[in-house]
Amino acid sequence: MTNTEKINRLFEIMNERDAYMRTLGKLSFDMQCTAPEEGMERAGEDMAVLGQQLYKIVHSEEYERLIVELHENDDGLTDLQKKVIEHAYDAYSKTKNITPEFAYEMDMVSNQAYAKWLEAKSKNDFSIFRDSFEKIIENTRKSIDLREEKKATYYDSCLDDFEKGGNQQQLDKFFDSLKERIVPLMNKIVKEGKPIREDFLTRLCPIPQQEEFSKYLMEAEGLRKTATVLMTSEHPFTTNFGPKDVRITTHYFEDNFISNIFSTMHEGGHALFMQNEPDEFYAQHADNAMSNAMHECISRFYENIIGRSEAFIHFIYPELQRISGDIFSDVSERELYEAVNIARPSLIRTEADELTYCLHILVRYELEKAFINGEITVDEVPALWNKKYKEYLGIDVPSDSEGCLQDVHWASSYGYFPSYALGNAYGVQILRTMEKEFDVFGEVRNGNLIKILDWLKNHVFNCASVMDPDEWINHITGESLNVDYYLDYLEEKYSTLYGLK
Amino acid sequence: MTNTEKINRLFEIMNERDAYMRTLGKLSFDMQCTAPEEGMERAGEDMAVLGQQLYKIVHSEEYERLIVELHENDDGLTDLQKKVIEHAYDAYSKTKNITPEFAYEMDMVSNQAYAKWLEAKSKNDFSIFRDSFEKIIENTRKSIDLREEKKATYYDSCLDDFEKGGNQQQLDKFFDSLKERIVPLMNKIVKEGKPIREDFLTRLCPIPQQEEFSKYLMEAEGLRKTATVLMTSEHPFTTNFGPKDVRITTHYFEDNFISNIFSTMHEGGHALFMQNEPDEFYAQHADNAMSNAMHECISRFYENIIGRSEAFIHFIYPELQRISGDIFSDVSERELYEAVNIARPSLIRTEADELTYCLHILVRYELEKAFINGEITVDEVPALWNKKYKEYLGIDVPSDSEGCLQDVHWASSYGYFPSYALGNAYGVQILRTMEKEFDVFGEVRNGNLIKILDWLKNHVFNCASVMDPDEWINHITGESLNVDYYLDYLEEKYSTLYGLK
Repeated sequence: MTNTEKINRLFEIMNERDAYMRTLGKLSFDMQCTAPEEGMERAGEDMAVLGQQLYKIVHSEEYERLIVELHENDDGLTDLQKKVIEHAYDAYSKTKNITPEFAYEMDMVSNQAYAKWLEAKSKNDFSIFRDSFEKIIENTRKSIDLREEKKATYYDSCLDDFEKGGNQQQLDKFFDSLKERIVPLMNKIVKEGKPIREDFLTRLCPIPQQEEFSKYLMEAEGLRKTATVLMTSEHPFTTNFGPKDVRITTHYFEDNFISNIFSTMHEGGHALFMQNEPDEFYAQHADNAMSNAMHECISRFYENIIGRSEAFIHFIYPELQRISGDIFSDVSERELYEAVNIARPSLIRTEADELTYCLHILVRYELEKAFINGEITVDEVPALWNKKYKEYLGIDVPSDSEGCLQDVHWASSYGYFPSYALGNAYGVQILRTMEKEFDVFGEVRNGNLIKILDWLKNHVFNCASVMDPDEWINHITGESLNVDYYLDYLEEKYSTLYGLK
Repeated sequence: MTNTEKINRLFEIMNERDAYMRTLGKLSFDMQCTAPEEGMERAGEDMAVLGQQLYKIVHSEEYERLIVELHENDDGLTDLQKKVIEHAYDAYSKTKNITPEFAYEMDMVSNQAYAKWLEAKSKNDFSIFRDSFEKIIENTRKSIDLREEKKATYYDSCLDDFEKGGNQQQLDKFFDSLKERIVPLMNKIVKEGKPIREDFLTRLCPIPQQEEFSKYLMEAEGLRKTATVLMTSEHPFTTNFGPKDVRITTHYFEDNFISNIFSTMHEGGHALFMQNEPDEFYAQHADNAMSNAMHECISRFYENIIGRSEAFIHFIYPELQRISGDIFSDVSERELYEAVNIARPSLIRTEADELTYCLHILVRYELEKAFINGEITVDEVPALWNKKYKEYLGIDVPSDSEGCLQDVHWASSYGYFPSYALGNAYGVQILRTMEKEFDVFGEVRNGNLIKILDWLKNHVFNCASVMDPDEWINHITGESLNVDYYLDYLEEKYSTLYGLK
């Protein structure tokens, strides 16, 4: 068999693999957005059956042999095909020792854990989730034990799955820098910041109007209407089934209209990434291989850097007034801008402001590092969570629903949270590069977000899936991750906003 | 292997089979209710891949051998297990000669046809659907050619799939009886019927209010909230993934509020059937084997016999007034009852009244019988459709969207339509038996629909999946299908309503 024949045959198998992956994704989407309560358990079982088949495909002798052989000798492959082989080989080597039975068990546990987490959160009862939680951690460690490549810690292995090359040592330093400059800034705001008007933030805004505004924002961001779906779920997320079927979810709160606005902007950012990689990536199985921090960089770029800018508020202000009727007619553009940027220690990560957000991540980072590495048990998580919130954010956590049960992530995997913080930092670094080419906020002011999307397509989306994080940020900005851009940005923005200089 | 071991092993395979069937059902549901336009094609391809795997399972040597062997010797099996084997053997013998490649092709064509039909209908352009339509007919005939059991006509084979033992000869007589008595009754109404107030039927009723009313109706019918979902689609339908996940769709028209009411009642009837078979049926793969006429009998029982009765209108009237605010405040209970029963030749089957409904089915019956038997080509369908509507219903069809493209059915299969008409007739026959045991409309008047549901559970749902249609109706009512009950009911109801006696 020539290498051309091999890659063609491999791509055939990948087509089948992708059909199963998309199907499993749709079943999961259905569970989170559509299925009735009683249907959850059976849905989880069905996903496990399909997962077994997917397992068989990606562990078939032929599939693995083709990957190993093409990894050993990639003569005649295009650069893109070489990259696909590299990713496939990485996934292969990480899972080659996982048995079908264990893969099935992991799927079952993970699917059931989602239902348990939902119930535990709604009943504010950690004990409902406890056993599933423990079991997933156990399975995660067991699956890492089965890997050939050994890392210094279990958590390093988790991090590597989401952020190639990431490790605790680097992240400890990264979070230290954030802590050093964000905590004093936050304290200064609490003590000396000027008051910001916020009475209107809890005014009731009917859901149909919020939905209409979400659709307006999605169009403004540049999402293709005929290829994008908006639905609701407990925890907002974005998923896709190829570039032509991208799905965003949101969660409407009648008494918190800005929650939906920035959730939509955030998930819209993810959706733009999914919809705008180069065509050849989609055609050759190279898409969707960017790191999670790259993905979060874009979503948080749209949510915060663009979404919470003066320029963007100027642009959306008239439409917000039109759609909401007279609900906010007494609120000025400036008041809206200030209110969406209020910085204040709070309980819920997804509702956190741009400034304190990384402190929420810090808590999760320290906890998941500890329980994955076996330094604490799941039973210690609720109390430790509360202790750390007191320590870093200065607040008391009144319930586990608003504490360690608030996020869905721990019902499936660990090592993702740091990506949010890294993404914030990447975002500002990329902004500074983009600004060298055009007046970014001048375009935002006029609602010309397509200009930004085009730039991202040509500089960010076009290479993310084929580069490791460090290579990628260097390629775009000419240097490795430099957290100072982000911290300078925060200090400048919040000092001005709160009249601290 | 003992027979017990055999049936246990067979049930294991059936568990896997059912996981694929539910998954394919969910993908189809997603296409119809959620997926964006651009996602359709890829979704169809993915379904074909899963369909291939399902094909492999039900055509595996082991699965087929177990069925054949247990069919030859069913010693020691329970009656329920024997019935499961009988159904499985029937399905096996009908499809045993279909190759995997042909099965895959049929899936692909059928999935793409749905998208083509949607487009053709929305653009009122039959030519968009034409090729898919022809291809599905061709595939249907080809698949019948591959069966061992030969019937007198191709259409007899189609009918047998939906209504075991059904054939053209019987149906020709059945439809003749309906035509003989319904057409003169309709003509009399047109000439001599008293006028019925209908000005309010096209008043705008906002969709959120219609949605709230749908949910009220579903609860009144006795559907379990935690196991039932309501969504929207182009053409209303019901589907389920086990008894704990039943899904109804509707289509809201702001200017036609009763359309949603009776669509919900109809699909709700299907949903009740899916949710209330005996537990052991679900556990032993015996559920969901009722004929389509049995299913339509229940849906149309709830839609028409209950839903359009004076007693039911009396029951829902106060809630309709409450939910709709002042929209219908000038409409009396009597006026509402009369208006929802207006009988008049019309274009759209799903909007047709109880009296003329069977004439819509008659048109479809005659056409699909002709094109499946090769007596006409697909190109003749639009004109013939219009000719028959003129002949039987006396009306001109202005466009194919409102003509032969109105229903989704022909984008997938043939032989289903007669079930609606048979279901109507079964329904009244069952009503007359039920009335011997309690005052049915007295209970409806008080909103006590649970009493009816309980009776149906104990007399109708408990045996439908394990009996052929003739056996079933005899078991419930003590006699074979007798169309006179239905025709007497129609004459009585409509003569009174229109003051003809």
